[in-house]
Amino acid sequence: MSLVTDTEPGLIALDWGTSGQRAWLLDAEGEILDARRASRGLLAITEGVDPGDRAAAYEPAFREICGDWPVLPAIASGMVGSAQGWVDAGYRTVPARLDFTSLVPVPHRDGVLHVVPGLRIPSGDGPGDVMRGEETQLIGVLEALGDPGGPVTVVLPGTHSKWVRVESGIVTDFATAMTGELYGLLITQGTLARTAADAVPDDAAFSRGLAAGRRSRGLATEAFGARPLVLDGVLEPASLPDYLSGVLIADEVSHLLCDPDSRLVLCGDGELCRRYALALADRGVAATVLSEDIAARGLWRIATAAGLLEDRLERTLKP
Amino acid sequence: MSLVTDTEPGLIALDWGTSGQRAWLLDAEGEILDARRASRGLLAITEGVDPGDRAAAYEPAFREICGDWPVLPAIASGMVGSAQGWVDAGYRTVPARLDFTSLVPVPHRDGVLHVVPGLRIPSGDGPGDVMRGEETQLIGVLEALGDPGGPVTVVLPGTHSKWVRVESGIVTDFATAMTGELYGLLITQGTLARTAADAVPDDAAFSRGLAAGRRSRGLATEAFGARPLVLDGVLEPASLPDYLSGVLIADEVSHLLCDPDSRLVLCGDGELCRRYALALADRGVAATVLSEDIAARGLWRIATAAGLLEDRLERTLKP
Repeated sequence: MSLVTDTEPGLIALDWGTSGQRAWLLDAEGEILDARRASRGLLAITEGVDPGDRAAAYEPAFREICGDWPVLPAIASGMVGSAQGWVDAGYRTVPARLDFTSLVPVPHRDGVLHVVPGLRIPSGDGPGDVMRGEETQLIGVLEALGDPGGPVTVVLPGTHSKWVRVESGIVTDFATAMTGELYGLLITQGTLARTAADAVPDDAAFSRGLAAGRRSRGLATEAFGARPLVLDGVLEPASLPDYLSGVLIADEVSHLLCDPDSRLVLCGDGELCRRYALALADRGVAATVLSEDIAARGLWRIATAAGLLEDRLERTLKP
Repeated sequence: MSLVTDTEPGLIALDWGTSGQRAWLLDAEGEILDARRASRGLLAITEGVDPGDRAAAYEPAFREICGDWPVLPAIASGMVGSAQGWVDAGYRTVPARLDFTSLVPVPHRDGVLHVVPGLRIPSGDGPGDVMRGEETQLIGVLEALGDPGGPVTVVLPGTHSKWVRVESGIVTDFATAMTGELYGLLITQGTLARTAADAVPDDAAFSRGLAAGRRSRGLATEAFGARPLVLDGVLEPASLPDYLSGVLIADEVSHLLCDPDSRLVLCGDGELCRRYALALADRGVAATVLSEDIAARGLWRIATAAGLLEDRLERTLKP
C-alpha cells in the first residue's frame, strides 16, 4: 500500500460535447498524464437511437475512449448531461457560485461517472439563456487567474460563443451568440458560398471585415457586402471567408462588449481567440488569452471540491 | 389597319429573376391584359450549362412563358441581365436618375428583347452594393406615388431586402440586407431548425421577436435566444419561425432606418410587407404599402420612355 502521489493517476475527466469528446487522465494534483480526443459526441451517439436506449448507447462510447485507463473516479461536463445525454444533469440558476458540489452520478459497469450540471438564466422579463460545459471551463479560468480583483468578462468563442460576467466567483449574467454557426451556414450555402472560393488565410481581409462589422449597418447588410466587394474585384473570392469572419466577430463584439473597463479573458481554440483578440484590440480592449485545455483544470477543481479524490484517497488509505 | 387602342396588346414585360419569371401582356397604357408566372429563373436555366451556351438556354424559356402572345416589343428586368443572364446589361452608377433610356437589346428568333441595366454603388471608401430588378420596381413606385414632395425611402423586402433613398427622381443611396436568406438558412438547418416545429402563424411570437430584435444584443444573440424560450416552455416550437422572423426584421429595421422623418414606402409580397409595416410601426414609423405587381408598371414606364411603344405605333400607322 502506498500514499497517492503526484504522479499516480487519480481522476478521469471528460469534456463530452455535441460533436466530440476530450478525455484526460489526471493525477491527484490535476496534472495531465494522458489526453485523448474522439468524435463520439451527442449527435453521433443519439443518431437513430430511441430515447429509452440512450444510456446503453453512451456507455460503450465511454469505454471506447478511456476503458483501458485504470478504474478511477470519473467526471464529465458538456452535452452528456443534457436531456439527450447519458443523464439529464439539469441546470443551476444564475446568479450561481462556481463551485458545483452537487454532481449527478451515473452508475456503469466499472463504477460511477459524475456529471456536472449546466447553468441557466430563466426566460422572464429579460432574455433566458443556457450553457453546458462552459461552466466547467469558467472554473478552470478562475483557477488560472487566481483572484482577479474585480469583475471579469470571460468570452468563450465557438459555434455558440458565450460572454460571461463573473464577480467574486459568482456568474451574474451571460449571453450566447451563434456566431460560429452563422459563419458555417453562410460559408457553405447560399449567395456568399457561391461567391467565395476555398479559403486562403488573409489577415487584411479579416481586418477589412472587422471595420465593416463595426460600421453598424447590421450583420445582414455587412455580410451581404462581401459580394459587391468580390464583384468589384476589391476582395478575392478566396479571402471572402476571412472577411465574413471579421464581419461576424466584430458584430458580436460590438453588441456584447458591455463594460470595456472590466477585465476581459478569452478562452478557447487558439486561432479563434487570436481573431477575437484582434476584434477587441480594434475596440481598445486588451484580453488575457487562455487555452481551451483549461476544461481539464476545471473538471479537476470540481472533482476535488465534490470530494471525488478524497474518496479515492480514503479508499487507498483504508483498503 | 387600325390605330392602337387601349385594349390592344402593346408590350410584353418580364420580371426575370434568380428563381423565376413573371410575365405580363400590357396594352399601350400599361394596363395588364394577361399575367403569368413560371419557375425558369437564372438558377434553373444556367444549371450545368456552359457559359457559351447560355443565350441558347434562355431563348426557349422566353418562348415557353410568352411565345403564344402576339409578336410585340418586349422588355425584361432582373437577373436575366446579369453576367450569368441572357445578356450582361451592366449597371448604372448611383446617384442615378430613374429613367433608363439605354436598354440593352437581345435579338432572338421573333424579335428583340430589351433588357434593363441594374444599379450599383462602386466599392470605395464606403461600402459598395448592387441591385438588378429592383430599379424597375422603384420606377413603378415613383409612378404610383406621383410627386412624393421630398425624399422617399423605399423598402423592398425579400431574400435580399433593399433600402433605397430616392430624392427628386434620383436614387442617391441604397443598402442590401440578406435577411430573407438568413431566415431560410436558420429555419431549415442547425440549432434553431432542430428546436422548431412546422410553422404555425403566431403574431404574438412575431411581436415578441420584434422586441428582442430591438434589444440590441445583436442578431447572433437574439436569434439564438429563441432556443432557451422553447426550452423554458415560453415559446411553442411551432411559433419559433415567427419569433425568428420578428428578430431578423427588427434587426434590419433598427440598422437601416436612418431617417425616420422621410416618407417610407414598402413594396413587395403582401405578407412580408405586413411584417415590415409592424416592425416600422414598432419604431413609430408609418409606411405606405404597394404591391410587388408594381414591377409591371415600372417596365411599361421604362418601355415608354425608351420609345419601344412609339416604334410599334409608328409601325402600325405606316405599314
